[in-house]
Amino acid sequence: MIILKIGGSVITNKSKKETFKQKTMDEISEVLAKTKKEFIIVHGAGSFGHILAKRYDLNSGYKNYDQIKGFSLTHEKVQQLNSMVLKSLQKKSIPAVSISPHSILRLNNHELEKMNVEVFEEYIEKNFVPVTFGDVVLDKKLGFSICSGDLLIQILSKYFKPDKVVFAIDEDGLFTANPKIDKKAKLIQETNLEKLKNISTKKDLHADVTGGMQGKINTIKNISKLGINTILVNGNKPDRLYKALSGEKTKCTIIYGEKNE
Amino acid sequence: MIILKIGGSVITNKSKKETFKQKTMDEISEVLAKTKKEFIIVHGAGSFGHILAKRYDLNSGYKNYDQIKGFSLTHEKVQQLNSMVLKSLQKKSIPAVSISPHSILRLNNHELEKMNVEVFEEYIEKNFVPVTFGDVVLDKKLGFSICSGDLLIQILSKYFKPDKVVFAIDEDGLFTANPKIDKKAKLIQETNLEKLKNISTKKDLHADVTGGMQGKINTIKNISKLGINTILVNGNKPDRLYKALSGEKTKCTIIYGEKNE
Repeated sequence: MIILKIGGSVITNKSKKETFKQKTMDEISEVLAKTKKEFIIVHGAGSFGHILAKRYDLNSGYKNYDQIKGFSLTHEKVQQLNSMVLKSLQKKSIPAVSISPHSILRLNNHELEKMNVEVFEEYIEKNFVPVTFGDVVLDKKLGFSICSGDLLIQILSKYFKPDKVVFAIDEDGLFTANPKIDKKAKLIQETNLEKLKNISTKKDLHADVTGGMQGKINTIKNISKLGINTILVNGNKPDRLYKALSGEKTKCTIIYGEKNE
Repeated sequence: MIILKIGGSVITNKSKKETFKQKTMDEISEVLAKTKKEFIIVHGAGSFGHILAKRYDLNSGYKNYDQIKGFSLTHEKVQQLNSMVLKSLQKKSIPAVSISPHSILRLNNHELEKMNVEVFEEYIEKNFVPVTFGDVVLDKKLGFSICSGDLLIQILSKYFKPDKVVFAIDEDGLFTANPKIDKKAKLIQETNLEKLKNISTKKDLHADVTGGMQGKINTIKNISKLGINTILVNGNKPDRLYKALSGEKTKCTIIYGEKNE
């Protein structure tokens, strides 16, 4: 089984409110249909979630009643995005089933308190493709907070021990510097946990234009510790995504899982 | 607290694929905002669910892989309807949060096996209004089946013991005969469990044009046994709905809960 994260910046225009990149998503769906593997899909909320979540300051928890309305509005927008993702997958005959984090998990001060992971298992057993996403959720300490797609990836990786985790991101992979501002930036083709430890200290390192780089590195480290390989690949390039999912060589970054010997 | 069931035939045109009655729903949202009570809302799937569920024969369980795609398509359509309900409620500043049955409950041969009811409680405590709906769900014996809004009402009533259960339906209430074909049909203004026992044997009795009458009577009986009053009121008449929710006299049918003395 493969856990695939589709970055919010791949399928939405992150700087523009609620702009779904239909063509990009349709290409990804086509790749998945062609790949014929067992998948769990996690997608980011992109501009459907982040803008409202920021406006209502939802990630720092409950402060006023207005945020309750903000939470409601945000989860509805993210559900809208999820519906578009589902429809795109269905067009390619992928039997996608949506699992909403706000209904099945609770955090405690941003960390997982409890989650019904079994429901993913039940759908997979029946040949469905579970689709989950970054969402607003209840938080025991804070009232509510945000459960990012990256946190979901970590929880699901721990439980399902997938063959690999693939991040379809908005760039070619992990670079030695920010490729958008530094022409000398080089794509890191292969790395591992040990090397990542040094990498993460560099401030200008860049993997995703809008997502927190440090957060992504931490996610990858946690996956790597489970002995699972992570691949960062450009989600806008269907041929590369197909190869990354199929285990063929392509332009991307592979972070090898730690071998426990 | 009040549990409100909004009939699928009230907010969709049941005979026409995916036709949402926006104006009717907006009027209901306005009534709820004015009522200022604690609510759980359950809505039917109407033409967003029933047509596909029937085409793929989803309620009788797994027979072939095609149904897996049918399940996926159906839950996505119902999610679309749910998004429209949420948006209508939000326009009236109601902080609605969607809880999808297919993520939080499992049936066993059409009967409840397990359900995360606590999640409703957690949202209510934080002043949200949980919104759930008739949905396709996993079924231990059958693979999958359908969880109707009426079944949800029974489960939630048992757990939350609401002050009353209100069904917003597509007619004025419960009649002595089918009012659409029998001019002598009279609205039953008040009744109770004992009288319902006789009523349910009449075949031409009519409460909902498309929903199963026997099923609805059984639901009401089960609520009544919990000692809770049920009100059937026309969901197309905002003034009646408002009065029914507020405890004022109006045209409707009241089924009194059984007193346990």
